[in-house]
Amino acid sequence: MTAPATKRLVMKFGGTSMGDLERIRRAARIVAAEVKAGHAVAVVVSAMAGKTNELVAWTDGAGPAAAGLPLSDDEYDVVVASGEQVTSGLLAITLRNMGFNARSWMGWQVPIKTDEDHARARIVDVPGDVLGAALDAGEIAIIPGFQGVSPTNRITTLGRGGSDTSAVAVAAALGCACDIYTDVDGVYTTDPRIVAKARRLEKVSYEEMLEMASLGAKVLQTRSVELAMGMQVPVRVLSSFIEADENGNLPAKAGTLICDEEEIVEKRIVSGVTMSRDEARITLLGLGDRVDAPADVFTRLAEASVNVDMIVQSQARTEGAVNLTFTTGRRDATRAADLMRAAQAEIGFEEIRIDEDVAKVSVVGVGMRSHAGVAQTMFKALADKGIKFQAISTSEIKISVLIDAAYAELAVRALHSAYGLEAV
Amino acid sequence: MTAPATKRLVMKFGGTSMGDLERIRRAARIVAAEVKAGHAVAVVVSAMAGKTNELVAWTDGAGPAAAGLPLSDDEYDVVVASGEQVTSGLLAITLRNMGFNARSWMGWQVPIKTDEDHARARIVDVPGDVLGAALDAGEIAIIPGFQGVSPTNRITTLGRGGSDTSAVAVAAALGCACDIYTDVDGVYTTDPRIVAKARRLEKVSYEEMLEMASLGAKVLQTRSVELAMGMQVPVRVLSSFIEADENGNLPAKAGTLICDEEEIVEKRIVSGVTMSRDEARITLLGLGDRVDAPADVFTRLAEASVNVDMIVQSQARTEGAVNLTFTTGRRDATRAADLMRAAQAEIGFEEIRIDEDVAKVSVVGVGMRSHAGVAQTMFKALADKGIKFQAISTSEIKISVLIDAAYAELAVRALHSAYGLEAV
Repeated sequence: MTAPATKRLVMKFGGTSMGDLERIRRAARIVAAEVKAGHAVAVVVSAMAGKTNELVAWTDGAGPAAAGLPLSDDEYDVVVASGEQVTSGLLAITLRNMGFNARSWMGWQVPIKTDEDHARARIVDVPGDVLGAALDAGEIAIIPGFQGVSPTNRITTLGRGGSDTSAVAVAAALGCACDIYTDVDGVYTTDPRIVAKARRLEKVSYEEMLEMASLGAKVLQTRSVELAMGMQVPVRVLSSFIEADENGNLPAKAGTLICDEEEIVEKRIVSGVTMSRDEARITLLGLGDRVDAPADVFTRLAEASVNVDMIVQSQARTEGAVNLTFTTGRRDATRAADLMRAAQAEIGFEEIRIDEDVAKVSVVGVGMRSHAGVAQTMFKALADKGIKFQAISTSEIKISVLIDAAYAELAVRALHSAYGLEAV
Repeated sequence: MTAPATKRLVMKFGGTSMGDLERIRRAARIVAAEVKAGHAVAVVVSAMAGKTNELVAWTDGAGPAAAGLPLSDDEYDVVVASGEQVTSGLLAITLRNMGFNARSWMGWQVPIKTDEDHARARIVDVPGDVLGAALDAGEIAIIPGFQGVSPTNRITTLGRGGSDTSAVAVAAALGCACDIYTDVDGVYTTDPRIVAKARRLEKVSYEEMLEMASLGAKVLQTRSVELAMGMQVPVRVLSSFIEADENGNLPAKAGTLICDEEEIVEKRIVSGVTMSRDEARITLLGLGDRVDAPADVFTRLAEASVNVDMIVQSQARTEGAVNLTFTTGRRDATRAADLMRAAQAEIGFEEIRIDEDVAKVSVVGVGMRSHAGVAQTMFKALADKGIKFQAISTSEIKISVLIDAAYAELAVRALHSAYGLEAV
């Protein structure tokens, strides 16, 4: 018998899978099974579940209470990055205990090169040569997710959920696929807690996943999907609640493969329905009908880094005035409203209203590109349930509507059914 | 008024002083007072009290259970070094919050260069140029104690208590003194829990401190004192339970200064009495009277890295045979005995006995060099209390006796009194 040719693979385990020593052992058994199956493996790990929150709370407690002092994001990174350092060392010890050759590689050792934007750094480059050579020499490389090193040799972190991005970046550097082990077993047509008959998707395209991630499906961090699409890294979302059999073999891979649209033979018109309550609607009533008034509003918001999603302009009661409605993330709503009030005279509007009792419901699917009637189906399904929508936004592969938050689940169920997404 | 010229200073805070955010704030106020007093400060910190034990327990839980597998000391270091990383970041944030310019420097950033002997690494070199320039530019440098970086760029730790050694090494690199803040307010003539009238020493010589540290006084780690002596770093042991006054000034420095013998004007014959229960006595009965038999025994022990302290040889009952008694640390006793038993035929002895019910009591003082009668005072004081001794060892500045453990406290009190060490 000849040994199977080794093929590189990145495996990523989230905080739940690293929650305690018993879970770390289970993750180690999954890694072992992939090595046994002939893979040269790099593992990216999150901190123990809850640990990052504890570390963040400490930095908050020590943090700038006095106004006007700069945030210590660089030192926040030093503290918070320690959580993944711990689990990477523990997983390496566990794998060695099982007889494998394993070692940890800190972000500054790989190195995972990032920019200097501490606490929300972006990965700039991951050299794959040294790491790849270690893998090819039979070593399992364990890499703490979420962390990197800045051009000035300081520890950085990528922002919450950044471990997915770390895993994809390492896979890109190693020129291989990335398996993301998490506490769900894949990407679903919608949230199974809302629709019991939600169906797991076998494959979903990068673009669909990107829309779904940014629209509220919490399986993967948006940036990790962007990176995977840009670097053409095949990503599989898998459940970490699996066990190898007595021979150390894993069950056949279920989960969801996130890949290029071209690799999906059977294209659906709509792949999923998503819902987000993280929305706020702001309306400027009686905006003077200057041609540059909306531009003035959105320039001010953009300069303050407030992301605006949907925009609706309608005729106001006042002659020669309009009402301008837009939505932002709920977190940014107060800041956006304060900005508007501070510039009320300059912008020129009569009144401002904020409504946080809204939800955004969306349908996503690459099939929309070539199929008419997708929007009509949506509007009819909502109308049949008596659900009014307050705003619409569309892209090539999604349609979103803003509705009263009370109707959110009802809308999801109606749309999931209208597009025939139920499991058989 | 002109600003006082800045003078570099290393300050070290132990695990109790870093135990929670409130204690970290107290340490920060002490640092702030030294900066206000005109010092350019580097701070070396331990992990939060209890944290290192938790991390070690995790590595034990993940660690090699199966026999024959190598220890993962390198990964142990990755896990355990995270504790000091956390406190250094938190102290930096706290100091910034108070308006100071502070940043953390990990062991690999300074770098604290060590050898590759993971979990018990020795510091090889600490370049002081970059760190010194940061201090001179007005930055408070926060350095995690206990950790360094190996020649292959991996995280190392110095072994338990290594943060004192880190602090002294940084002080040597910066060419300045080192203040060690701890939960006792200095070095005492003996353990105040045994002798209520024990007196704090204002000054103690490196050599005395070295003897006292290795004989069981737990104020400082032996290696840190060795390094301070070798690099001529003045070390002051101070209580961290102090507060700056309303003007941000610290009380006059009490504590104990550890310095060169020459700087101590009023030399005492005996500076301190120490006691250690971490002793075991091993006796080989009926050792064949070969001239090289003891050498054979001690060579075998040395090759197994068992440190032998006291040695006594006496006539055995058997004609042409001797009894050989030696002491080891209690931790090594079983291993030493196993070694002897395994080689019983080759070494040639009749019987082996182990006694762990012993204690070592010592008197230490540089004055012994020039004063006769020190030993007589000791023996008389012990004899007056009816305490027999089983072995003696001496150096130029200390005399140790091995006695029945039950008499240990009594012996300490008798000796403390006999040499007139009580506080007035």
